[in-house]
Amino acid sequence: MSVTAPDGFRAGGVTAGLKSAGPDVALLVNDGPSDVAAAVFTRNRCKANPVLWSEQVLQDRRAKAVLLNSGGANCYTGPEGFRTTHANAELVAERLGTGAIDVVVCSTGLIGEQLDREKMTTGIEAAVGALAADAGTAAAEAIMTTDTHSKEVVRSGDGYSVGGMAKGAGMLAPALATMLVVVTTDADVDADTADRALREATRRTFDRLDSDGCMSTNDTVLLLCSGASGTRPDEAEFTARLTDACHDLAQQLLGDAEGAEHDIAIEVTGAASEDDAVTVGRAIARSNLFKTAVYGRDPNWGRILAAVGTTDAVFEPDALDVAVNGVWICRAGGPGEPRDAVDLGDRAVTVTVDLKAGGESATIWTNDLTHAYVHENSAYST
Amino acid sequence: MSVTAPDGFRAGGVTAGLKSAGPDVALLVNDGPSDVAAAVFTRNRCKANPVLWSEQVLQDRRAKAVLLNSGGANCYTGPEGFRTTHANAELVAERLGTGAIDVVVCSTGLIGEQLDREKMTTGIEAAVGALAADAGTAAAEAIMTTDTHSKEVVRSGDGYSVGGMAKGAGMLAPALATMLVVVTTDADVDADTADRALREATRRTFDRLDSDGCMSTNDTVLLLCSGASGTRPDEAEFTARLTDACHDLAQQLLGDAEGAEHDIAIEVTGAASEDDAVTVGRAIARSNLFKTAVYGRDPNWGRILAAVGTTDAVFEPDALDVAVNGVWICRAGGPGEPRDAVDLGDRAVTVTVDLKAGGESATIWTNDLTHAYVHENSAYST
Repeated sequence: MSVTAPDGFRAGGVTAGLKSAGPDVALLVNDGPSDVAAAVFTRNRCKANPVLWSEQVLQDRRAKAVLLNSGGANCYTGPEGFRTTHANAELVAERLGTGAIDVVVCSTGLIGEQLDREKMTTGIEAAVGALAADAGTAAAEAIMTTDTHSKEVVRSGDGYSVGGMAKGAGMLAPALATMLVVVTTDADVDADTADRALREATRRTFDRLDSDGCMSTNDTVLLLCSGASGTRPDEAEFTARLTDACHDLAQQLLGDAEGAEHDIAIEVTGAASEDDAVTVGRAIARSNLFKTAVYGRDPNWGRILAAVGTTDAVFEPDALDVAVNGVWICRAGGPGEPRDAVDLGDRAVTVTVDLKAGGESATIWTNDLTHAYVHENSAYST
Repeated sequence: MSVTAPDGFRAGGVTAGLKSAGPDVALLVNDGPSDVAAAVFTRNRCKANPVLWSEQVLQDRRAKAVLLNSGGANCYTGPEGFRTTHANAELVAERLGTGAIDVVVCSTGLIGEQLDREKMTTGIEAAVGALAADAGTAAAEAIMTTDTHSKEVVRSGDGYSVGGMAKGAGMLAPALATMLVVVTTDADVDADTADRALREATRRTFDRLDSDGCMSTNDTVLLLCSGASGTRPDEAEFTARLTDACHDLAQQLLGDAEGAEHDIAIEVTGAASEDDAVTVGRAIARSNLFKTAVYGRDPNWGRILAAVGTTDAVFEPDALDVAVNGVWICRAGGPGEPRDAVDLGDRAVTVTVDLKAGGESATIWTNDLTHAYVHENSAYST
């Protein structure tokens, strides 16, 4: 169900031939009564055409539909690529009886190549025809690229619900990497609240996912609010529910990262500030030496300290404690419990770094760096 | 010859059993008449004990000897490890008839483990006995870890010479990663000149080498000046000669990077500032997606643009041009010449990014990300 679980939404997922196999065009329509929307886009300055378009759509913080496709990112395709995005939005708008400026567009797939306009036209017509209130899963499947399964979530609030879908099996990065996420709700939420809630939810979930440190060109996280439940939730409660749904999707993305054998949670505690904790966690998550060590099942705390030492966070080197899966193998910047006590056989790995500098903390999630990662990213163009 | 090519230097390289095989302790003595020295150390805040020690030695910008060992980094080994470094320097000083505070110490190898004091004592005694004016190569061999060959250089100036040795087969990073470099000269250079010349030389060579983005804990680049030639060179000429020697050593390090199949020069031109050029080059050098693409012989300019887009350099996304091995496959932020025209069969790869924002430029050197890199760094502790 995912995005169609909340009332007021219809979706469709169809096959237009953009990919070599499988569905590749999805459409999501918000039937209201509200059309409040919020979005977070990639911070990459070299953005794809659909991002440049959708930033315009979201300026009034309203949207009536989202067109998504896999099989082509329409990125670095110049003015011609932008015209393709615009034309696709126009066609959707015409079929739905609304304006193109109310139609968000998201694309994922190969970059540097034009998107096939004819196939998109065929796909859009088919997707409009397929629109249904129970087709959330079909839409979620149509946005998959190298994902091994679709990612969906549903959460129930008090008198409303939240649903979501996501794609992204790799190339995840702090500022979101070709990751497309659409979250829907039938709660009655005003535009300011929706914006604040989505920013807070992404800040603590997708933004703390750092699979390979690379920042994509097409990343988009959307929140559409239909208001169909008639329930206006408390902002804090709504934000918590939304964060919970985003966390669930983020963990699904992490678990499906290209070629990964370990999902690694890096908990940084004892930080002087939350920013310090995030900075330290990200530095560790981006250390190829640390990530290859985890792949080799080696609890190499020296590589962790070396990564911590590259940051400007508040800490004293000879005060640092590090645990891997609960075993404190580094104490006061030197050897602690024996490394042999650490078992890295399971997929889930937790690294804890205590900076001994304050009471703040944060968790960053990443994956190990494996032969399969190198294979997938060297053998295929993306 | 390397470090003993200039007059006034003796070296020794011996086997002390710190490594499973091969020589592992080196000693270099500056017999003067000058004992001017300069150094650049890792910017990692979690430094190894020999770095903490040597920073003190260099405070008066003079040094009479350098003790180096492979087979143990003496890093994250706490106060006991610092006492080991100090004791080793004391022993060298006693044998040479000088003070411990004139003895620089450099270590490389496993981190988080104490260095064997008995073996070090044996090694130091043997190295003192082996000191000779033609043993530069023996010293260069004794500092190798996973290096497949020793790295040495000699350059002749007008009435003086420059010699150098280096180790580091991977873990290279902008701020130098377990990379040890010792450069000697018999030029008569004052401390201020030596310091300025070394900083300028490293800034444009070792500091622009970014193999895997990881910053090591033990990195040290030393310059020792004996003054034995009696020649006082022009500062600009001396700096150029030193930079040339450092460039040669840096390229040797690059060519021996762990598991690499390609040496990649990233030339950033048309930058508004040299800092911008360096920032952009480094962002590309740190993109695992770009590095795996090169390994796969895929001239993936989209991944290059995506890396450029993560920086705050001055540029317009739709003005960027990118060439790989001379073929401009990206023009104005979109497709240019056909990708097929690019041949990535050779080890040497040149990526050129024209930011179209000014007249400054810089080159960053890196390697591709290969299966062998993952293997070497996951299968072995370092």
